[in-house]
Amino acid sequence: MTKYWINGVLADQVSINDRGLSYGDGLFETIAVIDGKPHLFDQHMERLQIGLDRLKFPEGTIEAVKNDIQALSFSGNQTLKLTVTRGLGERGYKLPATCVPARIISLSDSADFAQQRQQGVSVRLCQQRLGLNPVLAGIKHLNRLEQVLARSEWSDPDIAEGFVSDLDGNLVEGTMSNLFWVQDGVLYTPKIDLSGVKGVMRDRLIVLANELSVEVIEGGYPESVLDSAEEVFICNSLIGIWPVITIDGKPLNIGPITRDLQLLLSKEMSC
Amino acid sequence: MTKYWINGVLADQVSINDRGLSYGDGLFETIAVIDGKPHLFDQHMERLQIGLDRLKFPEGTIEAVKNDIQALSFSGNQTLKLTVTRGLGERGYKLPATCVPARIISLSDSADFAQQRQQGVSVRLCQQRLGLNPVLAGIKHLNRLEQVLARSEWSDPDIAEGFVSDLDGNLVEGTMSNLFWVQDGVLYTPKIDLSGVKGVMRDRLIVLANELSVEVIEGGYPESVLDSAEEVFICNSLIGIWPVITIDGKPLNIGPITRDLQLLLSKEMSC
Repeated sequence: MTKYWINGVLADQVSINDRGLSYGDGLFETIAVIDGKPHLFDQHMERLQIGLDRLKFPEGTIEAVKNDIQALSFSGNQTLKLTVTRGLGERGYKLPATCVPARIISLSDSADFAQQRQQGVSVRLCQQRLGLNPVLAGIKHLNRLEQVLARSEWSDPDIAEGFVSDLDGNLVEGTMSNLFWVQDGVLYTPKIDLSGVKGVMRDRLIVLANELSVEVIEGGYPESVLDSAEEVFICNSLIGIWPVITIDGKPLNIGPITRDLQLLLSKEMSC
Repeated sequence: MTKYWINGVLADQVSINDRGLSYGDGLFETIAVIDGKPHLFDQHMERLQIGLDRLKFPEGTIEAVKNDIQALSFSGNQTLKLTVTRGLGERGYKLPATCVPARIISLSDSADFAQQRQQGVSVRLCQQRLGLNPVLAGIKHLNRLEQVLARSEWSDPDIAEGFVSDLDGNLVEGTMSNLFWVQDGVLYTPKIDLSGVKGVMRDRLIVLANELSVEVIEGGYPESVLDSAEEVFICNSLIGIWPVITIDGKPLNIGPITRDLQLLLSKEMSC
């Protein structure tokens, strides 16, 4: 069962004049609640703050979000989704003279991903390209049509994810995840400076790889680097790490760096 | 006073699980109702259909929208806004197994733009760049953060519009309008193939220019072309044509092609 709050009050509808609906004028975060505690909460709030700054939201917005969350009761493993929109607006792009952001929260039971984490998943390469825009890159804003279109390319339930590249031909991310691959013992991941979402789990895994003394390189690479990759995995805040066992049908092994990172992550995600 | 309908019923709130809010997964049209009749209605429906196809909305969506509109009573000069979202969805980008689009309509009194049409307006050049994405270019989708950010660059009420260029440095549009300029008797306007909205009024004015035997060239041009322009104007479905009389303070004259197009347009917009 999912519960919903808007601005701290139980509610599940917004005005059709909310700028989140009109223009995608807002941001969101999806957080894993583990054993009653939001995982990587500070990191999610840091990314949200970067987005709020980038979109010129008023001061104090993040404090209101944190107050909302402090008022919630968590239990066990849940999924916490926060959406912050610019709130009500007249027709037109101009920011409201007085901006009162809408804080939308949903809290639901979490799914069990033990099988995907253990056995790995199949992925595909998407046709859809991501546009380039440094101002919107990295933050988790509500303008997500590119992800919707990429995800619409397949319906086969055995394909868990699709990788998307940008207009320049550089690999960026999965539709709902970030990706890593291993080559000659080095861990690679796309840099997220022109498109894509800079995942909280992505950044956490870079820290954990450092703890394992695994070198991590962020850069711009074409899809073809995956042909010779020794290991490939995807990650996000909810799924943790899913090893990739096929890309467009081509098989891959689940390797030691993937398993070591999963082990390290399991100590904080208890998974 | 503004009236609102959702799926043909008076209502002004949507579920927070509507994908229009979650992902900007939808499209909109803003139509001038003139003397009780939606202006350029067929053209608006054509652009909406292009967007619905591009975003893979189900067949029959446009017919439902048209039915909604046929059920309305128009009077005098009004503003009709249509929004079509993908409707309810679970968390995640995957299209719902059964997609039931939400059709949101608002009908309000129209503003009077006689002064801007007659005397012209001041515009500025925006810093914000538009990203490049051919799949989303042209259609009027709900992912409009770039326009929001461009419009947030100024608050001076004497500046009516800001011109934005794309990442390649080509002029694209105003935040809420398309733009045209005259050089050596030829009418120029940016092509809308990598970013921007292909305005219904923009396309109408290309037709009207042809009726006036004015050559129209669509292409990629940097902002600097405006330095030597003989006339500049902006347009959209509501404002009609507004001559531009200053760009970043530099004065421009209102020229004969602008006035001739305004005269021709006034015969159908009665303005």
